Amino acid sequence: MADEQKREMSRRKFLTAGAIAAGTMAVGGGIFGAFNSNVAQAKETCNIEVPSWPWPYVKLDAEKAKVLAYEGYGIDRCCYGVFRGIMVQLQEKVGYPYTMIPIEIMQWGATGGAGWGTLCGALMGASTAINFVVGPSRKDVEKVVNELYGWYTTFEFPKYKPPLGKAIKAEGAIPTSVSGSPLCHVSVGNWCSTSKYRAEGKERSERCARLTADVAAKTVELLNDWHSNKFAAAYKDTQSVEECMTCHGKGRSLENARGKQDCIQCHDDVNPNDLLEHIKKNWEIK
Amino acid sequence: MADEQKREMSRRKFLTAGAIAAGTMAVGGGIFGAFNSNVAQAKETCNIEVPSWPWPYVKLDAEKAKVLAYEGYGIDRCCYGVFRGIMVQLQEKVGYPYTMIPIEIMQWGATGGAGWGTLCGALMGASTAINFVVGPSRKDVEKVVNELYGWYTTFEFPKYKPPLGKAIKAEGAIPTSVSGSPLCHVSVGNWCSTSKYRAEGKERSERCARLTADVAAKTVELLNDWHSNKFAAAYKDTQSVEECMTCHGKGRSLENARGKQDCIQCHDDVNPNDLLEHIKKNWEIK
Repeated sequence: MADEQKREMSRRKFLTAGAIAAGTMAVGGGIFGAFNSNVAQAKETCNIEVPSWPWPYVKLDAEKAKVLAYEGYGIDRCCYGVFRGIMVQLQEKVGYPYTMIPIEIMQWGATGGAGWGTLCGALMGASTAINFVVGPSRKDVEKVVNELYGWYTTFEFPKYKPPLGKAIKAEGAIPTSVSGSPLCHVSVGNWCSTSKYRAEGKERSERCARLTADVAAKTVELLNDWHSNKFAAAYKDTQSVEECMTCHGKGRSLENARGKQDCIQCHDDVNPNDLLEHIKKNWEIK
Repeated sequence: MADEQKREMSRRKFLTAGAIAAGTMAVGGGIFGAFNSNVAQAKETCNIEVPSWPWPYVKLDAEKAKVLAYEGYGIDRCCYGVFRGIMVQLQEKVGYPYTMIPIEIMQWGATGGAGWGTLCGALMGASTAINFVVGPSRKDVEKVVNELYGWYTTFEFPKYKPPLGKAIKAEGAIPTSVSGSPLCHVSVGNWCSTSKYRAEGKERSERCARLTADVAAKTVELLNDWHSNKFAAAYKDTQSVEECMTCHGKGRSLENARGKQDCIQCHDDVNPNDLLEHIKKNWEIK
């Protein structure tokens, strides 16, 4: 009877500890209530704790990230691939709690989000992995993510070369291009324009598989730098963003735009001789 | 001695089980090796298992999702907010293993990814939550995500109204707009154009906080429908995507584009009288 009371006290204690760790109250009951009592038992006799976020990080291997990510592209495409290149290493080197995370939760980013061609899925997988191990300030997460996206827009993809005979879709050299944008639609479109290959052909797929390896390796480099206090932001906004945001940016006269994507990839460049006309369109902004 | 052997055997057995569950081999050792032996103890005496992915789902409350997501926007913006609106309910109703997931892993999506204005962060948080509970086929995940993005492009945001006196940034009515795009840059820009409010002002922030609630509620509705076999895809591609992809889409003569975003938000509309000229630009595509 005394033992049962001790066990019940321990259970409540764990649920509270779990609530703090997870940032919410884990309530028992419901059709999956059994899960909670299992966790309670764990706390009582096994000394399992949910580590506070950000989760522990150890130096990772950029070359291994390339191989894991490239293989991952073959399994479930770019977003899953980059996430795999980082999380599998953390599962191997740190173990718990990373072993609790299903890599599949980042399937959704392939083709820029269910075929929509928005943010490159490789960057989505990278950003989520970064957010597991950088924090607690969102500003710190954004420093690393911003540097990765900036690098992506200027890098000549793809650089990674799979071992001879081990290519997923196409052996040999793949034409390279610079996207100038973090968007899948633009990244793939620019590569098609440069390479003259089809957007859904095996060469494009191979290009994205190798890009997945390149992004995973760069992310590991940034994370290793961040956690060894060697991180240094190098990316500068493009000329169009600098120029356009002098009027359209935060705190400026026509503050009606947000973003860091190269403006003239979608908007007409502004002729200085037409500046007055260009401004008139926007003067009604409060 | 015999007990130690049994414990060691049990430990190996768990690590193998963990490897299968997590899709990788969880190796002990390294500076965090102690985590693994704790998990091994858990397996030995506490019957803790990592559930197979996708993780268990129970019917969630769309109204509660709005409140949790709106509050979440006030803590760490849109991506975190929507993720919170779904994951906190799963932590409460299912408990473990959701209680192991730090909601903060989706901080990165705010402002469309570290200020880049790409995919709306609310949709990033929603997509990751969806991917925890839908699967194992990526095609199934994409069905739900595609429906959510399509709905987003046509919905007049914001609809949610916080209780009187409880607004995060601005009380009262907020002007509404239809984005026509899943991109933060376009969604915010179109709202600024309609409302005449500034892109970084308190009214825009309030608009995005309420949009966060709307997206969380719609995501819960889609997940409840999916898990009760009531899901029905309703979204149809825009006219520009249908028309442009007849030449630029997969398997077509100029297959050099991918995506579902309204083409004429960034590209000039094609005048049928200029179609030949327009085609000539692309004929070199392999």
